Amino acid sequence: MIIVLRPHTPKAAIDAVIAEIAKLGYEPAPIHGATQTVIAAIGDERTGQNLESLRALPQVESVLRVQKRYKLTSRESHSATTVVDVDGVKIGGNQVALMAGPCSVESEEQLLSTARAVKAAGATILRGGAYKPRTSPYEFQGLGKEGLRLLAMAKAETGLKIITEVLSERDVEHVAATADILQIGARNAQNFQLLIECARSGKAILLKRGMSQRIEEWLLAAEYLLAHGNPNVLLCERGIRTFETYTRNTLDLAAVAIAKKESHLPVIVDPSQGCGRADLVAALCRGAIAMGADGLLIEVHPNPAEALSDGQQQVDFAAFADLVSSLAPFLAASERC
Amino acid sequence: MIIVLRPHTPKAAIDAVIAEIAKLGYEPAPIHGATQTVIAAIGDERTGQNLESLRALPQVESVLRVQKRYKLTSRESHSATTVVDVDGVKIGGNQVALMAGPCSVESEEQLLSTARAVKAAGATILRGGAYKPRTSPYEFQGLGKEGLRLLAMAKAETGLKIITEVLSERDVEHVAATADILQIGARNAQNFQLLIECARSGKAILLKRGMSQRIEEWLLAAEYLLAHGNPNVLLCERGIRTFETYTRNTLDLAAVAIAKKESHLPVIVDPSQGCGRADLVAALCRGAIAMGADGLLIEVHPNPAEALSDGQQQVDFAAFADLVSSLAPFLAASERC
Amino acid sequence: MIIVLRPHTPKAAIDAVIAEIAKLGYEPAPIHGATQTVIAAIGDERTGQNLESLRALPQVESVLRVQKRYKLTSRESHSATTVVDVDGVKIGGNQVALMAGPCSVESEEQLLSTARAVKAAGATILRGGAYKPRTSPYEFQGLGKEGLRLLAMAKAETGLKIITEVLSERDVEHVAATADILQIGARNAQNFQLLIECARSGKAILLKRGMSQRIEEWLLAAEYLLAHGNPNVLLCERGIRTFETYTRNTLDLAAVAIAKKESHLPVIVDPSQGCGRADLVAALCRGAIAMGADGLLIEVHPNPAEALSDGQQQVDFAAFADLVSSLAPFLAASERC
Amino acid sequence: MIIVLRPHTPKAAIDAVIAEIAKLGYEPAPIHGATQTVIAAIGDERTGQNLESLRALPQVESVLRVQKRYKLTSRESHSATTVVDVDGVKIGGNQVALMAGPCSVESEEQLLSTARAVKAAGATILRGGAYKPRTSPYEFQGLGKEGLRLLAMAKAETGLKIITEVLSERDVEHVAATADILQIGARNAQNFQLLIECARSGKAILLKRGMSQRIEEWLLAAEYLLAHGNPNVLLCERGIRTFETYTRNTLDLAAVAIAKKESHLPVIVDPSQGCGRADLVAALCRGAIAMGADGLLIEVHPNPAEALSDGQQQVDFAAFADLVSSLAPFLAASERC
Repeated sequence: MIIVLRPHTPKAAIDAVIAEIAKLGYEPAPIHGATQTVIAAIGDERTGQNLESLRALPQVESVLRVQKRYKLTSRESHSATTVVDVDGVKIGGNQVALMAGPCSVESEEQLLSTARAVKAAGATILRGGAYKPRTSPYEFQGLGKEGLRLLAMAKAETGLKIITEVLSERDVEHVAATADILQIGARNAQNFQLLIECARSGKAILLKRGMSQRIEEWLLAAEYLLAHGNPNVLLCERGIRTFETYTRNTLDLAAVAIAKKESHLPVIVDPSQGCGRADLVAALCRGAIAMGADGLLIEVHPNPAEALSDGQQQVDFAAFADLVSSLAPFLAASERC
Repeated sequence: MIIVLRPHTPKAAIDAVIAEIAKLGYEPAPIHGATQTVIAAIGDERTGQNLESLRALPQVESVLRVQKRYKLTSRESHSATTVVDVDGVKIGGNQVALMAGPCSVESEEQLLSTARAVKAAGATILRGGAYKPRTSPYEFQGLGKEGLRLLAMAKAETGLKIITEVLSERDVEHVAATADILQIGARNAQNFQLLIECARSGKAILLKRGMSQRIEEWLLAAEYLLAHGNPNVLLCERGIRTFETYTRNTLDLAAVAIAKKESHLPVIVDPSQGCGRADLVAALCRGAIAMGADGLLIEVHPNPAEALSDGQQQVDFAAFADLVSSLAPFLAASERC
Repeated sequence: MIIVLRPHTPKAAIDAVIAEIAKLGYEPAPIHGATQTVIAAIGDERTGQNLESLRALPQVESVLRVQKRYKLTSRESHSATTVVDVDGVKIGGNQVALMAGPCSVESEEQLLSTARAVKAAGATILRGGAYKPRTSPYEFQGLGKEGLRLLAMAKAETGLKIITEVLSERDVEHVAATADILQIGARNAQNFQLLIECARSGKAILLKRGMSQRIEEWLLAAEYLLAHGNPNVLLCERGIRTFETYTRNTLDLAAVAIAKKESHLPVIVDPSQGCGRADLVAALCRGAIAMGADGLLIEVHPNPAEALSDGQQQVDFAAFADLVSSLAPFLAASERC
Repeated sequence: MIIVLRPHTPKAAIDAVIAEIAKLGYEPAPIHGATQTVIAAIGDERTGQNLESLRALPQVESVLRVQKRYKLTSRESHSATTVVDVDGVKIGGNQVALMAGPCSVESEEQLLSTARAVKAAGATILRGGAYKPRTSPYEFQGLGKEGLRLLAMAKAETGLKIITEVLSERDVEHVAATADILQIGARNAQNFQLLIECARSGKAILLKRGMSQRIEEWLLAAEYLLAHGNPNVLLCERGIRTFETYTRNTLDLAAVAIAKKESHLPVIVDPSQGCGRADLVAALCRGAIAMGADGLLIEVHPNPAEALSDGQQQVDFAAFADLVSSLAPFLAASERC
């Protein structure tokens, strides 16, 4: 870390900072400019104490980090892109994974008809929420275990792999009994206890970026998963919260390229949450492919206008089939399939 | 809700929306303007189905809510300000509650010396984190149960009530055995399973606003607590995430006045997290008092420069005593004590 | 507009709002729900008085707009996409326009070598700042008229059209004497006097989205240009300000699809400002093409490390040539050239 | 500046950066850690070339600034708080300045009645917009020169000083003939040509913070004014743009304390724009006083519901008088008057 002292700090006050740096386990290397002194603190910033506490000293103006805070997640630690194998479906390789299905599991007919439709259009993984995190306690909270039962039924019939969200540490075990991929939603992106529990399940995990999570913090949340022994992690960009109100969120497509540059993990894009409008989903899928996404997570519903959650961002079967067709030239342009 | 149709929508398409509104359980009341039709959907928006799904129809331009989404939390449902009684310490009444203590519980000496100092300066509630949500898995994660033991010891000695954060549904029971107030942190502001579990404990709950939570969403998170039977809720403004980088967060002091206007719940301000800089804490406390805050949650450490977490935002004992003194005229101006 | 009254507003207070709406020139149409009344105010919201002022009445809870605020800019007013003809170079048609050149014009050699290089790689328009809006008064402010002279020289030699930023109403005339496209920068996105002056020049105008401008506000800024008689407007997405710090701005690629859906104007993307990092520019260009951009505005410098402004986001000649080559398959996938 | 190199950068690539730093006019001081080298570049960052351009080199990971970018504006350059003398009304001293009046000047009766009312309640400066920056070209654009004439009339009758916004370089001269303080609005916060022209007028200038301007950038905009010879600058916090939708902007009251700590200039707060809701203005005024504001800029209208601009945030005469009374104990608590 670099500790910047205020201009014209007297020597005794500089020495006090130098001593404190040494006490906290770093080797201090001061550099004296014309009016300001900076002190480099040499040591491992990741595992050593965070020297930002030194800003509590009046002569310290700022503390600047030098090293990256994530390690296992970083491209430096693992130069090849990780391919996550979800029971035979490979994510992160040449093929872009299509995950599709309803926002919420609502009924057997709704789920099975959707499963058949998305499979026919090319999806290999079925999404569907059994446990739904809803802003209001009065909104539909999901079918819970019944939803999981229906997902298992859809899997048995279609062979699609299953991704579904887990909201509680206590649900990890039974959700993992059905799901092939555990989804951690944006609201739980820094629910570290849930992350650790999911990591321990050994299942593949799709980690959504939090609504106002910096990319560094997202990679550090992934670091919790890897540090707890689970390398099967998919990062998922799903839009960040900004001042814009036309869309529900602002999909940060640059984050796809950044996450792939900084990390070795596959990156999935959720355009449905990312904009909250069915009419933009296809365009965002094309943009995501062009930016290098390794997969797409798309909400599909037989009759969006009557959906029990987020109908406005779900596409119907025909629109989904069209969308998938429209991606082909962009997959080819990206040398993906 | 108000459903706005696109300009020049043909009659058949208007009728289809009217029929759909009726089907979804609302009474449709169309109003025809010169170029655009809007349809009011009369009914209870809170418990009825969310008509935003109608945006899935191509002739629907937008859907506007009319009613407030929160109910038990609202000032309409409960016109008097709630006073939460924390084992004799009343919050929300005439007296502004001072909650103070270290960011993390680090050791017996650190905690007990701080407890004595903050009590001497006028605090009635001791804060201290035993379980710490940390951005990186390599940072100090708190002392856990040992931390709780030390908090209990500090309570026994000083008589201060205890507030401490709970991170996991599984910890609620044993944290509640020590704590007088369960703190739900900003990262868990929409971890609804944790909220429900805390609500069920019957303990008072301090609910921090999420980093990018709109005030409506914050009140809806509180609604989860009240709807699950726990009326002892303290709202806590702790800064929101913006583009500004001088401070760690942007403390939204207007939110204090808004939350007190919209809701009957007491509102606490956390200036330490709110700015992330010890040198601004006293000024923000004065601002919070002037805006009508019912309590302050302040981080205090015997030696902030060596704190194991967030030293830069913790004040030392002398600074805390000065801060408390400086509040007296503002409390008087607010007709509080 | 829709005026939402507070629950349980007495009849006299409802009638007062109805009377006020009529007085302000709208036809009031009240709808009475179980607990709340809403009043539709029928009339032209765009040219009539803004009824948001009614929120000043205590019985009014909120005022919701129904109509779109922009008109000439809107797709409804002009269903075909506008093609702006810049002295023979057509923007908005089948061909995606490549605009490239240095952030600032620094010297004859710098500019001319860049002009030759970008032309060789396929650009048809040369960018280069003669007047530079700089955050600090101590930073390089551009060469001014000498910069314009060099741009004219580059145009004469290469035949490239010229785009350059104008910062002052007083400069419009002489900048327009050299430039084929006047660029309005993000900091001046709501400098309406400058917009009007540029509109009057009759030149094509590239209007950058402001740093925190909602899409609606951006289209309304364009509306100033069209309403002052200039239809030759190019919208330019250049990144918005968010909490993310990895990039300088967050490029909002969804805005490309939205602006093309809502408006008939061509949409250009500036990936250089959009991320502030040379290493992301190529990926963002591919994303922009896939999202439907009609042009790209890319910063190119012979030696970015020594650039007098924003070197970190400028690509060198070789990188630019590679970038252009990499776009070909995505142009083909988009059925553009 | 500190140049951080990537881990394991080979010696030759380190030496290349060292040479480049020297070439650009700084003295390089490398510090070699276990895996990473950082190079301090010693020299005046403010007037020297911005080394961020070095990020264009592949071996450079980041560039960190050490020095503050503003100088004349800084508290270091001028330790006493500046008192701006507006023709006898002193701002920045012990007395908190009350500036009040309508959002827009609409008519003689509207302006004069307001001037009398705000004077009676204690204001010393009359605000009123003659030139209005409006998001839509179809909204009321102000009375222009007629508005200035009315302001002059109000001044002649009441003796109140006048503050009014200037939108165009071409208006500075004639606006300055009437106004005592030139107001630069949030939309023009980085319209540097307008800033320079206003600076040259010699008049006092109130500089509003831009909607998404970091505090550093705001102080740098003020630096433009001081660097062009005008020390009579008032900073004005008026709310920043965030994701919150309950209020029009998020008033950043911490910025008051920060601006007063970092700078010697007086700080004014505009609570009307800051929240966009009349019902919050009084509370925000109290908060602003408690945070140390040197003045308040408040919108007052005889009949807000019929105001031609922003009625929803204007208070009427009775509310203004109440508001002023309610401030007295907070002024006393702050040892201000």
